[in-house]
This record gives sequence, C-alpha cells and structure tokens, in this order.
Amino acid sequence: MHDEGYHSDTGRIEAFSDGVFAIAITLLVLEVRVPHVAENESLTRALLDIWPSYVAYAVSFISIGIMWANHHNMFKDIAHFDHSVVVLNLLLLLTISFLPFPTALVAEYVREGHHEKEAVLVYASSMVAIALMFDAFWIYVSRHGHLLDEHVSASRIRSRTLRYVPAPLLYGVAVPLAFVSFWIPLVIIASLAAFFLLPISDE
Amino acid sequence: MHDEGYHSDTGRIEAFSDGVFAIAITLLVLEVRVPHVAENESLTRALLDIWPSYVAYAVSFISIGIMWANHHNMFKDIAHFDHSVVVLNLLLLLTISFLPFPTALVAEYVREGHHEKEAVLVYASSMVAIALMFDAFWIYVSRHGHLLDEHVSASRIRSRTLRYVPAPLLYGVAVPLAFVSFWIPLVIIASLAAFFLLPISDE
Amino acid sequence: MHDEGYHSDTGRIEAFSDGVFAIAITLLVLEVRVPHVAENESLTRALLDIWPSYVAYAVSFISIGIMWANHHNMFKDIAHFDHSVVVLNLLLLLTISFLPFPTALVAEYVREGHHEKEAVLVYASSMVAIALMFDAFWIYVSRHGHLLDEHVSASRIRSRTLRYVPAPLLYGVAVPLAFVSFWIPLVIIASLAAFFLLPISDE
Amino acid sequence: MHDEGYHSDTGRIEAFSDGVFAIAITLLVLEVRVPHVAENESLTRALLDIWPSYVAYAVSFISIGIMWANHHNMFKDIAHFDHSVVVLNLLLLLTISFLPFPTALVAEYVREGHHEKEAVLVYASSMVAIALMFDAFWIYVSRHGHLLDEHVSASRIRSRTLRYVPAPLLYGVAVPLAFVSFWIPLVIIASLAAFFLLPISDE
Repeated sequence: MHDEGYHSDTGRIEAFSDGVFAIAITLLVLEVRVPHVAENESLTRALLDIWPSYVAYAVSFISIGIMWANHHNMFKDIAHFDHSVVVLNLLLLLTISFLPFPTALVAEYVREGHHEKEAVLVYASSMVAIALMFDAFWIYVSRHGHLLDEHVSASRIRSRTLRYVPAPLLYGVAVPLAFVSFWIPLVIIASLAAFFLLPISDE
Repeated sequence: MHDEGYHSDTGRIEAFSDGVFAIAITLLVLEVRVPHVAENESLTRALLDIWPSYVAYAVSFISIGIMWANHHNMFKDIAHFDHSVVVLNLLLLLTISFLPFPTALVAEYVREGHHEKEAVLVYASSMVAIALMFDAFWIYVSRHGHLLDEHVSASRIRSRTLRYVPAPLLYGVAVPLAFVSFWIPLVIIASLAAFFLLPISDE
Repeated sequence: MHDEGYHSDTGRIEAFSDGVFAIAITLLVLEVRVPHVAENESLTRALLDIWPSYVAYAVSFISIGIMWANHHNMFKDIAHFDHSVVVLNLLLLLTISFLPFPTALVAEYVREGHHEKEAVLVYASSMVAIALMFDAFWIYVSRHGHLLDEHVSASRIRSRTLRYVPAPLLYGVAVPLAFVSFWIPLVIIASLAAFFLLPISDE
Repeated sequence: MHDEGYHSDTGRIEAFSDGVFAIAITLLVLEVRVPHVAENESLTRALLDIWPSYVAYAVSFISIGIMWANHHNMFKDIAHFDHSVVVLNLLLLLTISFLPFPTALVAEYVREGHHEKEAVLVYASSMVAIALMFDAFWIYVSRHGHLLDEHVSASRIRSRTLRYVPAPLLYGVAVPLAFVSFWIPLVIIASLAAFFLLPISDE
C-alpha cells in the first residue's frame, strides 16, 4: 500500500509536468503574429513573408512533443522518487518552458534577414541545455536503481541510456555551425525532431 | 495487468491532449483586444465594431470544443497505442494549437473591412488541415484493429468512419468559395460547428 | 462495469473543464501590465494608479474560483452524461473563458477615468451570461434524473436549485445600476464573490 | 466508500491547483521579450542586456516549482476537506498566480537601471504574501485534525509547522532591505529558492 502511495505520487509529478509541456507547446502559437497590411498591400505576400514563424512553430512544437513522449517513457520506468528527482525534473521543465523565447527569436531574425546566426545559436544552445537536463535526470534515476520499477531490465536501462545520452552531442553539433550558416543548424534541429518521430524499437 | 498498464498509458496521452485542447480554447480570448477610445468617443460603438472578434472567438471555441469531444470519443475506443499513434496525435494537436492564429487573422481583417477573403481562405484551410489530421489518425487506428478496445464492433467503426471521413470535404467546400465571398465560408464553418453540437445517435 | 466506464467519462469532462478554469483564472494576470515610468517619475505612484487592475484581477479570480467550486460540486452529483451535457458544459466554459476580456475592459476604463459605466455594464452582463449558462446546465441535469448519481436525494436537488437559480437575478440587479453608477455594480459583484466564499450548509 | 469519495475530492482540488501552478510557471516566459535591434546593432549585446529577465524567470520559476512541491506535500497529508480549505487554497493560488506581474516588474526596472528598489520591494512583498497564505492554509488544516490523514503523526505535523511558519519572516527580512539596496533582497529570495531545492529530511 505504501508503494501504491508512491506510485500515485509520481502520478502527480507527471500531471504537473504534463501541464507544463502542454502549456509550453500551446504558447508557441502566440509568437505567430497577425501581419498588419494596408488595403492596397498584399496580405498573401505578408503571410508568406512570415514563413520563418511557421517553421519555428512546427519545429519547436514537434521538439516539445517528442520531449513529452520521452519524459512520459522515462516515467513509465520510475516507481519511486526522492527530492532530487523533483528538483531535476523542475530544472528540466525550466529549460523546456523557456523554449518559446528562442523560438520567437529565430522566427523574428530569420524574417528580418539579419542576425540570423546569433538567433540560431541561442536556439541550438537552448536545445543542448534541454538535452543536458534530460541526461542529468536519466543518469540520476538510472544510477539509483531503487527508484526504478522492478520490471525494468538492465538491458532496457542500457538501451535507453544509449538513446538519451548522445542527444546533447547531436544538438551540440549545431551550435558551432551557427557561426558558419544559420541554415545548417536549423536543418539539424528539424532533422532530429523528424528523426525522433520515427518508430522506436524497444517499446 | 499489462493491458491495464497500456490503458493508463492512453490515459496520459489523453491528459496531455486535454491540456493542449483546454489551453488552445482558452487562449482564443487573448485575441479579443480591449478597444482604446478617447473620452469624447463612444466605447459602445467601439465594442460593437469589434463584433468579428466575438464571432471568431465563438466559432473557434465551439469548433475546438467539438474537436475535443470527437477526440475524447475516439480515445474511448482505443485500448492500446504505438509510436505512430503518438506521432499522429501530436500532428493533430499541432494543427489544432495553431487555430488561434487564423482566428485572429479573420477577426482583424473582417473588422478592417479589407482582405477578408484571404483571411477567410486561411481560416477555412486550417479547418481542412485539422479535419485531414483527424482522418489520418482515425484511419490509422481503425486499420490496426489490435489498437482498438475489443468491445468496439465493426459497425461502430464503420459508423464513425462515415462521420469523420467526409469532414475535410465539408470544410473543403468553404476554401474555394472564399474567392467569391468571405461570408459564405464563415457561414459554412459556423454551421458545421452548430451541426456538430446537435445530438448524435451512436453513443 | 458499464457504469464505471461512464464515471470515468465524466472524469474526462471534468479534467477538460478544470483545465479551462485553471487557464482562464491564470490568464487574468496578463491584464495587469507593468507601468512604464521615466527615471524622474514615481513608480510607486504609477503602481498605485493601476489599482483597478488589482481589484479586477482579485474579483474575477475569486469569481472564477467560486464557479470552479460550484462546477465541481455539480459534477459530484452527476454519474452519467449525454451529448447535451457536453454541449451545455461547452457553452458554459465559453462564457467563463471570455471573462478576461470584460475584466481587462473594466480595469482599463476605471483607470482612465471615463466610460466606466459602459465597461462595468459589459462586466456585469458577462456575469449574468455565466450565471444563466450555469442554470441551463443544472436545470437540464436535474430534470434528467437518470444522469444523477443514485445517492442524490430530491431534497439535495431542491436545495441546489434554490441556490443556483437566483444567481442570474442577483448579478442581473447590477446591470441596470451601471447606468447610474459604476461603483454600485462592482460592489455587488465583489460582494457576491465574497458571499460565495462563505461556508455553505448542504455539503 | 464515503471516505474514498472525499479522497477523490482532494484529487480534483489538487488537479485544479496543479493546473494553476503549471500555467503560472509557464506564463513567466512571456515576460522575456525578444529584443529588437537594427541590422547595424549588436543582438548579442541586446541579449546580454536583458539578463535581469533571465534571472527573474529562473528565480520565479524555481520559487513556484518549490511552492508546488510544498503544496503537493501538504495535500499528501490531507484526507478530507471543507469549504474553508477550498477558500484558503483559492486565496493561496490567487497570490501565486499574481507572481508573473512582480517578476516582470523587477526584470524591467533592473534592466532600465532606475526604480529597482521599488520594484524589488513589490517582488519581496509578493513572496511574503504567498508565504503568509501558505501558513494560513497549513495552520487551518493542522488545527482541524479530522482533515488530516490518520497516518500523519503529531511529530510530522510539528516538523512541517516548524518548516512552513518561519517562511514569511525569512522573505519578510527582504522587504525593508529593499530600501537600502535592490541586490540584497534579490539574493535573499534566490538563496531561499536554492535552499528549498536542497534535500529535506522528513519525507
């Protein structure tokens, strides 16, 4: 019965986290601003001109959605938690909730046609920060076996670790490339989002 | 017990989706802006002038509400899920979360009195995109019978398919008509929202 | 088991509604805008000048909180639901989600010192609309006894009806008084919020 | 069975509160505004200039996160509730939902380089108000033993009381110091947030 109580506890951490994910993902649309045109100007043109907003919306939406799915999968394996789990989860949510800011930054400066590299650098760095917090969370949990559900096998832990741990490096590749071109990092981040949409094997 | 675990999994997808629906529907009010009038101007007049904002708010609110109810009804029939369900659901939510943007667009340009047709075209197209994602989701789930609850009968699947699949066509009719008049597509979309509010038989 | 399934259904309507209430109540703070003052102006003075924003925030927050509690109490008595319950609940949420708009309207024009009466008229009318939708919902449910939990007694239904049904009249008194003074309706609405905070007997 | 019903009741208060916490914490990012620079200006410089926004975001995020964890811990001990619990919880949420406003205020005026002390005074006072509402809530619940879970020991209540009750004093120290320096109160509030992130013993 005590265990069950703990179970329902991770339930409330999950519910709170789900709320934060759901809000962060939905707030992204607020950065897509209605363009103002006069009667003799073309609205169609203005709507096409803000294409970076649509791309940024879609990439960030899918990225946060993937993060939610990963968060959800991690918590399926967690049966108990301690104060450090609460704190690490909070710091992870802190980085995810921040994403609407770099998303808006990229959309604005790609649209403006200047300072795109700095904006993309911030965006890629934010992704690295999120991936690092994910790793910190997972490494802490996987190293404290008593937090995991007893049905989680060692090979499953290893397979998850292999999937999560390289993520900061993958996103990290995008950061220095932002000094060269703003397109390459964006394509890398979008590709990673698309990649994580692909079916996975260990479920 | 394994099945029950899966059940609680769709529970968390539903909880996350409910969050996104609830936030998208509530953010709509942010597009209804307080009009600024000077002391010698009429506030009543200004409040009446922004009627397109109220109409757009109501039509989008009811549309998202109906989509939530449909989403909820679909998930009642789903007992298991795989990665594709997660991805298709995420893409469906992506289109729904976007709706505050075309809603604000229509409200602004109907109020301005120019470019209404382009704005309504975008609005109707967004509805078509949502309806298409709904269909993609339902067709995937209904073609993978093992995802469905065992109590779901073939006739029930057929009846749902007949109800969902034509929706993109119904909304799609509104798109070309936007080249003729901005009123007709709005009336079609509002009528569809009202129609879906009517009682349904197969519940 | 079928009944239990229905129970968990009202669970999802409640979860969706809770989300809408929670978001509508939290969005209210977005209408309290940071005042901009220059270095030689008084920020303290500017912060005091926007007192109508604080009052509007508090009155609307408590009002939505009370509505949530009432909604929650109503659903405790509901065991089953039909399509009309979904629709009536959606229309109720539509009026509640709209409240940030009249709240911002009152805060702005009381601060501006003109057009307060029109603003308060809209605010009071919004409260009447919400109260009417609450009544429509409760009257529908209470007239369809099979929707209610079997443990709900006739006297309990009567006592709830007596408490809910007069609310539109109470708020309604504030509407015509807005033609005379903007203070009286605000005091009535704040008093009703405070009154509903008082302990109730039939729980 | 009646008791179980009550249990599920605190479940819905918790769900509603979780929603408010999750939204308030996620709305904080809206106060971090994208800086606008011309082509020949430095975006890097502009992004560094708004550091007070990042600090305010992080401190408020962690503070609300800690409040959520405390709220969650309190509710673990509560088995039943009455109308006063609903009202006290609502007033607590009212103060927490307000936090995005003083957060934006501090970020803006520390960035502007004037009126920092007044802004920090408001921020510290908001923290005191939240801590006072927490105490009012906990004192009410702990004094009405029948609301607590029967497994909650007297020593646990005492240990919680000792942890919660001094919080308004700790935050309260920051308020008068705002007349002397805007840095000291900010460091106190950030330190308290960091302190509450440390492991606790009685869980």
